[in-house]
Amino acid sequence: MEEYGLDIYRAVLTDRGMSVPPLAVDRGGARIDDLARLEGVGAALLTPAHQFPTGAALSTERRTEVVNWARSTGGIILEDDYDGEFRYDRKPVGALQGMEPEHVVYLGTASKSLAPALRLGWVVVPPRLLPAVTAAKGRVETVSVLDQLTLAEFLTSGTFDRHVRGRRQNYRRRRDQLLESVAQHAPNTRVAGIAAGLQAVLELPRGTETRTLAAAAHHGLDVSGLSEFRHPAAGSGTSHRDGLVVNFSAVSDSAWPGALASLCAALP
Amino acid sequence: MEEYGLDIYRAVLTDRGMSVPPLAVDRGGARIDDLARLEGVGAALLTPAHQFPTGAALSTERRTEVVNWARSTGGIILEDDYDGEFRYDRKPVGALQGMEPEHVVYLGTASKSLAPALRLGWVVVPPRLLPAVTAAKGRVETVSVLDQLTLAEFLTSGTFDRHVRGRRQNYRRRRDQLLESVAQHAPNTRVAGIAAGLQAVLELPRGTETRTLAAAAHHGLDVSGLSEFRHPAAGSGTSHRDGLVVNFSAVSDSAWPGALASLCAALP
Repeated sequence: MEEYGLDIYRAVLTDRGMSVPPLAVDRGGARIDDLARLEGVGAALLTPAHQFPTGAALSTERRTEVVNWARSTGGIILEDDYDGEFRYDRKPVGALQGMEPEHVVYLGTASKSLAPALRLGWVVVPPRLLPAVTAAKGRVETVSVLDQLTLAEFLTSGTFDRHVRGRRQNYRRRRDQLLESVAQHAPNTRVAGIAAGLQAVLELPRGTETRTLAAAAHHGLDVSGLSEFRHPAAGSGTSHRDGLVVNFSAVSDSAWPGALASLCAALP
Repeated sequence: MEEYGLDIYRAVLTDRGMSVPPLAVDRGGARIDDLARLEGVGAALLTPAHQFPTGAALSTERRTEVVNWARSTGGIILEDDYDGEFRYDRKPVGALQGMEPEHVVYLGTASKSLAPALRLGWVVVPPRLLPAVTAAKGRVETVSVLDQLTLAEFLTSGTFDRHVRGRRQNYRRRRDQLLESVAQHAPNTRVAGIAAGLQAVLELPRGTETRTLAAAAHHGLDVSGLSEFRHPAAGSGTSHRDGLVVNFSAVSDSAWPGALASLCAALP
């Protein structure tokens, strides 16, 4: 797994006894050259479209490189495309799954485009893996069939597309306002990872993360430190960045200007 | 587990390596005297209010007996109260959980009272088991939070009670019509398990189940044979009954009279 990510994902795998080494992440996304150097890796869980939470997109070269890795080793790429609907500055990147459907398991979710409360997601599995995945899922159905049918109707009716277009405009506006405000009020802070998605990383001067988090909490803000997402075995050096992970979608329109002002006031 | 029940429930337990011996069932429900004779049993999964699918209620004596078994052995009773809302001929039986909250895990569901498509259920756990159950559930939430909040509102507003009262009247009427029609058109068939719930067992003359199922399918009916629900290790003798399990709730009001006529035509 990437050296930055959700600890709950790591826990799902390590709870089943898997060893999950970290893969370094830089501004071009996951370091696929490091992946090729690791021994005995059967699968790589990646967020190619928008690295979570640092926000990098996997570079074109590395996209080719990771597909070649999968083809030559028989490895599986787990492509977590959690927010592919929200890309602001250029056309959406195609899924890796489209490049190599035999080696990529595509994971999608309604959590970002609709709401995490729905607990709806989907998996596109290479045909040869389908029996094993179905068996692992088991016969117990846990996801509301009504919700599944409602989502299907939402998709086929075109309403979902309209919804996403509307949200994309809203989130892009907020993203731009975030960039402007931070540049104006907190010149020591660099905003990264904002070509897509609902979260931005505010890169802080070294050693200021804990203090800034406390200041943000004091202003009533619920933001996370970048260190919360760091793989416990992540390498030292440049990977250990200080930063805030800010979700700019989870605030009402009326609360947004005040939240933004509070955020800037909390920055060093 | 009871010698009649859902194979999917058995599979959940046996898939985790558990040994699940069958417990005989008669017109007084599960044979608790047999439970006490089994060695090394840590838990019993029972349907005390309405044995599934045979329909017996656990007798008063056996209710006391199984609670005493749990108290004296430290065993756990898993009380699957899947349709406790629908009792027709007498007052609802209290849950075993109310008699012995320290040894009973209560399992409820919206599948019968609302719809299986919702995939909503709940568990009442003895406090000492709560940490282990929470840990086993894990941090991944699978049930729609919107659906949970909607159900909570449905319950607290009193609408759920009104809904259940209306459905109870409807199902009791169907149950009575089923009894009448079968008595009139298929005198060889005895209807059992109909004091509660949404299913009845039509007890057939020995050796006629397979043929009757084929006749029912020929009439376009989706009913199950009692043998589908039999534990593979169930004892021989009186337990091996021939019967149809008929869910009389899953038909629209307009289709019900025709379905009932077809059912009677299929019976021997």
